[in-house]
Amino acid sequence: MDYNATSPLEPEVIQAISEALQEAWGNPSSSYVADVTFVPVSKVTGCVEVEDVISAIRPNTCLISIMLANNETGVVMPIQGICQRVKSLNKQRDHLRILLHTDAAQALGKIPVDACELGVDYLTIVGHKFYAPRIGALYVNNPGVKTPLHPMLFGGGQERNFRPGTENTPMIAGLGKAAELVSTNLSHYESHMQSIKLYLEHRLKAVFKEKLHFNSHFPGADILPNTCNVSILGPALQGWRVLSNCRRLLASVGAACHSDSGNRPSHILLSCGIPSEVAANALRLSVGRGTTKADVDAVVEDLRETVQLLEETTGGL
Amino acid sequence: MDYNATSPLEPEVIQAISEALQEAWGNPSSSYVADVTFVPVSKVTGCVEVEDVISAIRPNTCLISIMLANNETGVVMPIQGICQRVKSLNKQRDHLRILLHTDAAQALGKIPVDACELGVDYLTIVGHKFYAPRIGALYVNNPGVKTPLHPMLFGGGQERNFRPGTENTPMIAGLGKAAELVSTNLSHYESHMQSIKLYLEHRLKAVFKEKLHFNSHFPGADILPNTCNVSILGPALQGWRVLSNCRRLLASVGAACHSDSGNRPSHILLSCGIPSEVAANALRLSVGRGTTKADVDAVVEDLRETVQLLEETTGGL
Repeated sequence: MDYNATSPLEPEVIQAISEALQEAWGNPSSSYVADVTFVPVSKVTGCVEVEDVISAIRPNTCLISIMLANNETGVVMPIQGICQRVKSLNKQRDHLRILLHTDAAQALGKIPVDACELGVDYLTIVGHKFYAPRIGALYVNNPGVKTPLHPMLFGGGQERNFRPGTENTPMIAGLGKAAELVSTNLSHYESHMQSIKLYLEHRLKAVFKEKLHFNSHFPGADILPNTCNVSILGPALQGWRVLSNCRRLLASVGAACHSDSGNRPSHILLSCGIPSEVAANALRLSVGRGTTKADVDAVVEDLRETVQLLEETTGGL
Repeated sequence: MDYNATSPLEPEVIQAISEALQEAWGNPSSSYVADVTFVPVSKVTGCVEVEDVISAIRPNTCLISIMLANNETGVVMPIQGICQRVKSLNKQRDHLRILLHTDAAQALGKIPVDACELGVDYLTIVGHKFYAPRIGALYVNNPGVKTPLHPMLFGGGQERNFRPGTENTPMIAGLGKAAELVSTNLSHYESHMQSIKLYLEHRLKAVFKEKLHFNSHFPGADILPNTCNVSILGPALQGWRVLSNCRRLLASVGAACHSDSGNRPSHILLSCGIPSEVAANALRLSVGRGTTKADVDAVVEDLRETVQLLEETTGGL
C-alpha cells in the first residue's frame, strides 16, 4: 500500500503505450563548450584513419570520441585499432590519461559489439536502434573507480548518484530483453539484413543502371549489413524531391538529428568525398530484421515510378 | 525503409515491457549549487505558510519552488495564495521577477491541478504517480518567451533545443492517455480514494485504539485523498521493523528518494512537529484507484498480527 511511491498503469495507458510501441515507432524529429579537434574521415574510405586520430592528439587531449558506425554511410570505424594505439600512448603520459568513447547507436544489433574487445572506456547504447524501447544506456568501465564519471543532473541520488530520477524499470526490462535477443540471434539478424541489402542493391542497379551511384561503397571499408546509401543521378532527382513523391517508401536523406539543415546535401557524404550534386540526390535506405524481398521489390518499383514521373514532369529539368 | 533512424520493437521486447508495466511498477530505489533559503513548514498545520514564504523573499530572490502536496503527509500547500502575493510583489520589482515553480508529482490524479489557476510559471508532472509510465514533463508558461527556460543538456536539437534526444513517443502517448483519464475521471478517483482512506483510518483506529497516532492529521490542512501516515506507538514498533515483519503489506516509511537515510525518523515528519519517537514508528500508507475495503482489511489484519508478534517477542522491549 504505497501508491505515493508509484502507481500501477491503467489498462488504457498500457494499451496506448503498446500501440505506440508497435505502430508509432518512427523517429519524430531528427553545442558544446570545450576545446575540440575534429578529425575528418578519409575521402577514399569514408572512414576515420587511425593515423589521423593519433596525429591529432595534443598535450591536453583528454577524450577521444568516435562513432562505431556511421549513421548515413554505415561505415564501421577502426575503434579497436585506435584504442590500442591510444593505450600505448597513455603509458607514456604521466598525468592526463586519454579516455576513449564510442557511440555504438548504429552498430548494436547489426554487427558484434564487445566493449572490452574494442578497448573503450565508454560506449553509448541506444535502445530504439535495435528493436528496444526509447531508452539509452552508457557503458562505463568501472565507473567512478577506473573511469571517471560525473553526474550532469542532480537530485534524488538514484543510480549511485550518477543520474537522478526514478529508474524507468519497464523500459530497462525492454532494453535488457532486446539486448538478450541480439546476443542470441545476432548472426541470424546480420546475415538476413546483409542478404536483403544485397538484393536491394542488386535490384536498384538493375532498374537504374548507370544512373545509380552507391554512396556507401568504399574500397576496403566495412559497412553495416543493413545500410544502403544511394543517389539516383539526374537534375530533378534530389533526395527530398524523390522521397516526397514516393507513394510507399518512407526513408530519409540523412540523419534525423540534422533535419533542420533543410535540403542541403549531407555534410557527412560531402566529407566522405561524394560530390555535391551526387550527395544532393542521396537516399539512405536501411533494412530491418523483418524486411523481405517483396518489400524491396515494392520499394524499388515505387522509386522507379517516382523517378519516371519526376523526369517526365520536369522534362529532365 | 529507414531502420537506421528507429527500429520497431520485437514482440518479446514489447511483452517484457508490458509485463514490467503491469507487474513490476514498484519504485526500485528511492545537492544544489545556488544560494537557497529553506522555509520551514508550520509545526501546527504541516503546511508552509504564505506569510513565511513572503517574508523570506530577499532582493536577489529569483525563484520560489514549493511542492503542491507533500509526499509523506499528503498536506496540500497554499500555492495559489503564494502565487497571488508574489505576483503583487513582482509589480514593484523592476528588474528581477520572481518565478514560481511547483512540483505536482503527488497531487496530479488525486486533486484538481490547474497550472493557470494556481498561477505558477513552472509545474512538474511525474507520470508514474498517476498511473502513467515513467516519464515526466515540465509545464512552462510560454517557454523561452514569457518564462525563461534554459537547456541543461545539449545535442540533437530536439524539443525546440530545450532538451536533446529522440522523443520517447510511446511513453508520451501513455502520459497523454493517463492525463486524459485524470481529466475525465478525477472526481471519481478522488472520492473512491478518499472513502477507502477513511475506511483504512477507521479500521486502524478500531484495532490499535490509543496506540494509533495519525501523522497526517493537521487542523485546517487539506490532505491528499489517498495518503494516510500513521504511527503505532510502542518501543519495538519502528516503521522499518513493522514493515519488514509484515507478510502482505508493502509500504514505506517515507519517500523512496531518501531511503539512504537508513532508519532515522523522517525529517519531513520531524519538521511537521511530530515527536521523534512517534516519527520513528511512521508508516506511509497510500491507497490507489483500485484499492478495495478487502485490501484494507487484509492490511490491517497483517499489521495487527505483526504488531502482536513484535510486542510478544520483544516483551514490549
